[in-house]
This record gives sequence, C-alpha cells and structure tokens, in this order.
Amino acid sequence: MSLLNRLLLTCLVVVTSVLLVETCNEVVCGPLVSKCMLIKCCDCEMTDLRNCTCCRECQLCLSKLYTECCSCVGLCPPPDLDDELDKGSTVEHLKDPIPALFDVLTEQEDIQQRWTTFTYAIDLNRVNKSSSKHPQLGISVSKNRDDLDNGDDNLQSKPNSRIHNCTTAFFSSCMAVGKCKASCKSMGASKYRWFHEHGCCQCIGNTCFDYGLIEPRCLRCPEPTETTFGDQPYSWADNVKAMYQTDSSSFDTLS
Amino acid sequence: MSLLNRLLLTCLVVVTSVLLVETCNEVVCGPLVSKCMLIKCCDCEMTDLRNCTCCRECQLCLSKLYTECCSCVGLCPPPDLDDELDKGSTVEHLKDPIPALFDVLTEQEDIQQRWTTFTYAIDLNRVNKSSSKHPQLGISVSKNRDDLDNGDDNLQSKPNSRIHNCTTAFFSSCMAVGKCKASCKSMGASKYRWFHEHGCCQCIGNTCFDYGLIEPRCLRCPEPTETTFGDQPYSWADNVKAMYQTDSSSFDTLS
Repeated sequence: MSLLNRLLLTCLVVVTSVLLVETCNEVVCGPLVSKCMLIKCCDCEMTDLRNCTCCRECQLCLSKLYTECCSCVGLCPPPDLDDELDKGSTVEHLKDPIPALFDVLTEQEDIQQRWTTFTYAIDLNRVNKSSSKHPQLGISVSKNRDDLDNGDDNLQSKPNSRIHNCTTAFFSSCMAVGKCKASCKSMGASKYRWFHEHGCCQCIGNTCFDYGLIEPRCLRCPEPTETTFGDQPYSWADNVKAMYQTDSSSFDTLS
Repeated sequence: MSLLNRLLLTCLVVVTSVLLVETCNEVVCGPLVSKCMLIKCCDCEMTDLRNCTCCRECQLCLSKLYTECCSCVGLCPPPDLDDELDKGSTVEHLKDPIPALFDVLTEQEDIQQRWTTFTYAIDLNRVNKSSSKHPQLGISVSKNRDDLDNGDDNLQSKPNSRIHNCTTAFFSSCMAVGKCKASCKSMGASKYRWFHEHGCCQCIGNTCFDYGLIEPRCLRCPEPTETTFGDQPYSWADNVKAMYQTDSSSFDTLS
C-alpha cells in the first residue's frame, strides 16, 4: 500500500470516527461503518433516496446492525434516545362481539357519564389518498349519530364519496388494560384500544374496520390531580407495568 | 306488604342468589342485581337484543357496575376469568416517516432475512361490507409486490373495486417494544405493530391506512427453543413487562 493510500485511509477513518462521535454509537458501529465506507458501499449522495445509487448496497453492508448504525452513514435519522412509548396503544380484536348490545349501549348519550360515545364517518375515497401524511384525514367526528346521518355537508354532499360510519365508546375513568378488555367485551364491542399514557379505554363497534380514534378522549382520564403514581412522580412506564400486573384482579378492583 | 308479596319477594331473592352463584360475583353484584330485578328494570326477554324492551333501563340500573354485573341478568356473556391479553398488540404512529427509505428497504426480498416483506392489497369495497365478521377480509397478501401489481385476479379483475396496496415488514427475530419502535423508525416506516405474545415486530409503510396484518409473521419469533423466560416457564405477561422494562437499553442489547 502506497504512502498516499495509507494517508487517505487514515483520513477516512478519522473522518468516520468524528462523524460517529456526533451521530451514533461508535463502539457498536465503528468497525462496520468504517468497512462499509472503505469498500464504497455507502459512498453516495443520500439526500434524495428515490435516486440513491448506493442505498441498497449500503443497507446490505450494515447487515444486522442496520437499525443501530444506519444514521452513522446518513441513511436514516439519528435515534432519539429520549423517545418514550407513551403515545402507543394496546389493541386487540375481541371474540364473539355482540353488535346489537353495543348499539343498545351507545345509541344514546350515557346520562351517567360512564362512557362517551363518538360516531365518526370516514370517507374511503379520501383515506386512500391521504393516509401517509394525515393518518385520520377523511374522518368527521360527532358525539351524536344524527349529526352525521343528516348534517355533515363536508362528507355527505359529494355524490361519489363512500361514507362509512363507525361508533366507539370511551370510558370516562382510567383503567387497567385487563379491565378495558373485559369492559369492552361486556359492551359487545368488536375491538378495544387502550392508550398507554394514562390508561384511557376505547371500545370499538363492529362497523369500524380500524382501531377507532387514535387520540384518547376519556372524560376523567387523566384525573386533574393525577401527578403521582403511588408515592412516585407519575411515569407512563410505571403505569403500563402496574396495569399489566393488575390484570387478574380487574374484577376485584372496582371503582 | 301482604304474605303473598313477602313470599314472592323471598323467592325472587333466592332465585337471583342462585343465579348469581352460577354466573357472577355475588358479593359485588348481589344487592344491585336484586334491586334491579325487584324494580323490574331487568325483567324482560334479552335473547333478541334488537327488540329488547328493558335493556336500556337495565344497563342504566346497573350503573357503574355494568361491566361486572351485566352477565348476572343475562344482558352480556359471563366474564372469562382466564382471559389473557396475549393476543393484543402495541401500535403507534411514528413521527416523520421516510417513505422513500421504506421503499428502498422493502422493494426487494431481504436476502439476509433480517425482515420479511409483505405487500397486501385491500379492496375498500369489500372491507366496507365485511368488517364486522372478518376483520381482514378483502385482503390479499403476497411476499412479492409484482404478484399483486400484475397477477391477483381476485382483486384486480373487478372494474369497480378500489384496490389499495400496502407494504409491511416483519423482523425475523423477537425484540423488545422499544427496539421495535426504533427499528421501524430507522426503516422510515409510518407505524409499527408489536405483538405481545412473543415480541414479533411489524413495520408499516405509509400507504397503509390501518395497522398492517393482525397476525404475527416473524420468521424466527418465537424461536423453536423458546419455552422459558430467564429461569421461569415462558409467560407472555413476564415477556411484556420485561420488554417494557428494557426499552431504554434497546440500543445496548444488540443481537
């Protein structure tokens, strides 16, 4: 190897190392990224991924460390180490739904405020075109079915729109995931969605083909005073873990 | 109160008590159910819920104990106390997806088997009609996009069908939920679905308007030898709890 080549190699390794310190885990990715750069697998412009000439080779070179190291070569954004999972939901299809029972329970507003019913219309024409940027565009939400049946000009007026009504019910209080599932089964729902952050529970009717609304709308969840979890400051992770732990006792811990 | 009335009342309470022992929590529901029966709120035929004359009054009478006690009066099925949550999934929309990157990574089969790509076509016409009984009817799944683009007669042949293609990628190995989210973000996915039972991870592309396929299809998850969790017999609940606990270290625990 000539002196020039040695110098170039050294420079490349130094530059790679500097980049690694800034954007990725040097210990895990250093050797592999250096190798991929040296053999020119990841050596191309990656700002326009549609016209990227090396991206396929590069991701193959990163092999099993793709997730951990793709940001080191600019192929993906750096990982957000502070990223939490509090916006996630637990969802499940329920066996043997009873649509007629769900209708009985949701056709009128619950005067006891045990749950709040939402009926939304989704326009399948608009969903098809807009799902990537606006996950629930094409949706019009109402707390009253009649509003949608008669009055929503936005969704009803177009002759070719394919309107699909769907009803969901949000329990007012927070609850454990096991109780959410049992509660939705007892209402005859077809699916449930349990929001991790505070334990808001949504029961989903049989005419919905998705998992209902993606944002929690529980009336009293979180409670205004909910700032601690036991003796500790509130933590979604503690919440999720504790609520999974209390599944078996969901029928003993009545509110 | 006449003697006859007292006798009838006693009989009603006895019958109610016998029923309670069979189907529901007597301690919790006994007094309330007895009251609702006595004031005739739940005293009607409930087999045909569409024509049920007392169901609305009955669920109001059960009030905040509806979930726990509806089975005592025959309004809903008895709770399944052995019911587990292992068929649930955690789902989440991801910020700032990169569709072009997801396309680069999924347009061809991954020769390293880090993930398996599925492209499925969903016919919105059929979904609209069938969502209640068959959650994913109207879906045709293929591991090769070309199969759907060119050859699926079932979905392509009808002139008025509204075909909507969607691509998802299942990682081959099980992983913690935090690593699933990070991995899907690094692929540019729009959403992820993490299956609770064993930790199978599905990344979902931007053209999907739902949360991908509802059954896990990870190649090596569970592993054939996976029968214990640490030193304990395998338990989905331990799995979920442990995998939530290891979120913060998902980048340190590389496979």
